[in-house]
Amino acid sequence: MPSSPSKPFFQQKFADDSDMVKKLAEAVLRGERPALARAITLAESRRPDHKRLAHGLLDILMPHTGGGIRVGISGVPGVGKSTTIESLGTYLVDQGHKVAVLAVDPSSTRSGGAILGDKTRMEKLSMLKDAYIRPSPSSGTLGGVAAKTREAMLLCEAAGFDVILVETVGVGQSETAVSELTDFFLVLMLPGAGDELQGIKKGILEMADLIAINKVDQNEKHARTAIAEYRAALHIISPTSPNWYPPVMSISGLTGKGLDTLWDAVLDHRRKLTASGEIQERRRIQDIKWMWTLVYERLHEKLHRDPDVRKALPTLENAVKDGTLSPNSAANQIIGYLGLE
Amino acid sequence: MPSSPSKPFFQQKFADDSDMVKKLAEAVLRGERPALARAITLAESRRPDHKRLAHGLLDILMPHTGGGIRVGISGVPGVGKSTTIESLGTYLVDQGHKVAVLAVDPSSTRSGGAILGDKTRMEKLSMLKDAYIRPSPSSGTLGGVAAKTREAMLLCEAAGFDVILVETVGVGQSETAVSELTDFFLVLMLPGAGDELQGIKKGILEMADLIAINKVDQNEKHARTAIAEYRAALHIISPTSPNWYPPVMSISGLTGKGLDTLWDAVLDHRRKLTASGEIQERRRIQDIKWMWTLVYERLHEKLHRDPDVRKALPTLENAVKDGTLSPNSAANQIIGYLGLE
Repeated sequence: MPSSPSKPFFQQKFADDSDMVKKLAEAVLRGERPALARAITLAESRRPDHKRLAHGLLDILMPHTGGGIRVGISGVPGVGKSTTIESLGTYLVDQGHKVAVLAVDPSSTRSGGAILGDKTRMEKLSMLKDAYIRPSPSSGTLGGVAAKTREAMLLCEAAGFDVILVETVGVGQSETAVSELTDFFLVLMLPGAGDELQGIKKGILEMADLIAINKVDQNEKHARTAIAEYRAALHIISPTSPNWYPPVMSISGLTGKGLDTLWDAVLDHRRKLTASGEIQERRRIQDIKWMWTLVYERLHEKLHRDPDVRKALPTLENAVKDGTLSPNSAANQIIGYLGLE
Repeated sequence: MPSSPSKPFFQQKFADDSDMVKKLAEAVLRGERPALARAITLAESRRPDHKRLAHGLLDILMPHTGGGIRVGISGVPGVGKSTTIESLGTYLVDQGHKVAVLAVDPSSTRSGGAILGDKTRMEKLSMLKDAYIRPSPSSGTLGGVAAKTREAMLLCEAAGFDVILVETVGVGQSETAVSELTDFFLVLMLPGAGDELQGIKKGILEMADLIAINKVDQNEKHARTAIAEYRAALHIISPTSPNWYPPVMSISGLTGKGLDTLWDAVLDHRRKLTASGEIQERRRIQDIKWMWTLVYERLHEKLHRDPDVRKALPTLENAVKDGTLSPNSAANQIIGYLGLE
């Protein structure tokens, strides 16, 4: 007797890899949590065979992706990202949404995961059956981490999550990477006045679709000053879209104050930029960039898996270090091993 | 009669490309300025045939490189980089050095060259026969710009320049790129007090081998406060080397005050870190990184020159944009055209 299609993924038997991928896809579409977790683990794996399975899975699931509202959330450590995401996520689940929380933290390789590493930081949200929290993949380059988070996002959408919150630490280029993954970029700020503005990178303001001054519960007066300062700062910056002027508002991630207004702004942005076609265009450009990321990821893999390259590499690197071989000649030899020249 | 070897490069005739490269190498080694300029132009060119010539040239010249003191100079716009480089360069030429000034400015593609674009900004230095000023190559990615600046640096060393100053704008990742090109990383700061510290990226302080508070001529008191503040800030940061603690000092790029002390610090750093082997190790690591940059640059070239890829690309990109082809499948097709799979 064939296994029933409604049998959970982990109780099924598979004829081969392709059968497994097909059944995993079906289980993800049914919204089975363990199957989703397995699918993301495959996508995050460094093993080439796992990656192939994950990409086969994504090819099946692609028609079922794209239905999520994708929101990037940035802010320096201490701004209250986790608390805000927990409150916002809970609010959205109450509104009937299914909420996935992902993260891009390229430092997690070294630090062991600065953000979302400890799920218990979002205790309340992580208990809800309509919420799914996944820490940042920990893998080398920012590009690699971002590509894996993109794949996790698509898998979550296929599993029926209609809001994807992507957290990032407020350092380096990771904000750019997250803004290139998402439809809306939310920047959290602290309610300090004047001085604070000195510390923001102009680039962050240019990316922001909304600036939320957090911790208004602690100091309402400072929050008001900060709102005025950020509004002034935004005046000298070209807006992200001709159809959208980034609002600046105060919220409290702790008490939940202002999160309804914040979400209304996200929905307003979505309405306006869907009508203008900008959301669709933004996603199309993201897809093309993703395609190129995958091309280079694969070239990188081939290079490091190639038996000739692996064998020659220690000798080549030593010769370059000794100065007996120029980096240029060494590079040519490596390319030569790929049989391209 | 064969052409005399001492005849300037631009008056010689060449049997073929390889002969031209050989004669160009000889002219660079003789320190001929127009030959050096031509060599750098070849290295900066996007044309594959030019790049091949440039790399052949570098292979010949490699044994004659490495003799320069390589100093990266960073600081936000307005800090007085050009003025300081002009004064420092002039001081060094007076001391008997040959000084090359290069730049890494990845924004120059868009902006038409924010730094060193206008040579007249360093009027006095550019008139000296022992100084050579070259604006940033303007070409796409930061990695590309940095790789080209590295090649220009090696060519300058082969031409006998023994001090290489590499300017960079104080934004994004370009400081990291420049610190990976150089032996010593100098950060210029303004003499504002407290508030200013808010605006510095911690990453910059971590890279600095010396912090110079510029414009001491304008406000000596503020400069003293700034020195104290930066020294305090450096205390919480792990030093770049166990053998070097970054000095903080005040200078005036305009009057030249303090530039002798600054240069003494560069030489002191060089002595100590040469004795410990760290300078050599730093350069070895830089060479390995450069090798990999060249590998990926060449893969990129092959991809974009491949006739099958060029033919298929518009269709593939459109299919990805329309959503009829997954970025993953498109990437696999592109890789397939290279005959690697």
